[in-house]
Amino acid sequence: MYDSAYVLEKAIRESEEFKSLQEAYESVMNDPNSKAMFEEFRDVQLDLQEKQMQGMEITEAELDSARNIVNNVQQHQGIANLMEKEQRLNIIIGDISRIITKPLEELYGGFEEEEE
Amino acid sequence: MYDSAYVLEKAIRESEEFKSLQEAYESVMNDPNSKAMFEEFRDVQLDLQEKQMQGMEITEAELDSARNIVNNVQQHQGIANLMEKEQRLNIIIGDISRIITKPLEELYGGFEEEEE
Repeated sequence: MYDSAYVLEKAIRESEEFKSLQEAYESVMNDPNSKAMFEEFRDVQLDLQEKQMQGMEITEAELDSARNIVNNVQQHQGIANLMEKEQRLNIIIGDISRIITKPLEELYGGFEEEEE
Repeated sequence: MYDSAYVLEKAIRESEEFKSLQEAYESVMNDPNSKAMFEEFRDVQLDLQEKQMQGMEITEAELDSARNIVNNVQQHQGIANLMEKEQRLNIIIGDISRIITKPLEELYGGFEEEEE
């Protein structure tokens, strides 16, 4: 299993999708303005996620400010490109994760169905 | 990437660790008493986890009842065996997941360090 996992890690690292994410990330992070905007966006995103998970109320002002930042970020070509590349790789990682947890899901799922 | 993921899935499915988990699970689920005890344990565990995640208070009575079930479950050889096998495979799945997300972690982690 570990051998196969390392082969998969290498495949991810060498994939077109990972390499273009890397380029997009580096190009944003190497420009101080883009970097600051991207980090502000990240912070706001994480903050809202945390509040949502803890069931805390999100104020209208917070939502407005978040929408504002998302708007700015979407108009910034470098960051929009980075987010697109992130999304592409995230979809793949999600697929991979579903593939490798399939044996467990089948094991637990098989008996659940019998219960119904 | 997908090819490597399927190779890894096969390796997991054919591993000693997965096969012995499968056996342990089937042997618990095929005995009505063990099955009921295991499912009660699962339900209580999930319930407590959910409450914890939502920041809800867990009463002393709930904790007592959970401790009781854990005690019963640990003394049941079949379920104790199943839990041990689950834990073994979970550790491996955790390792695998760390291995395959390493490229992403290095990418994002590299720049974080520079900030400090």
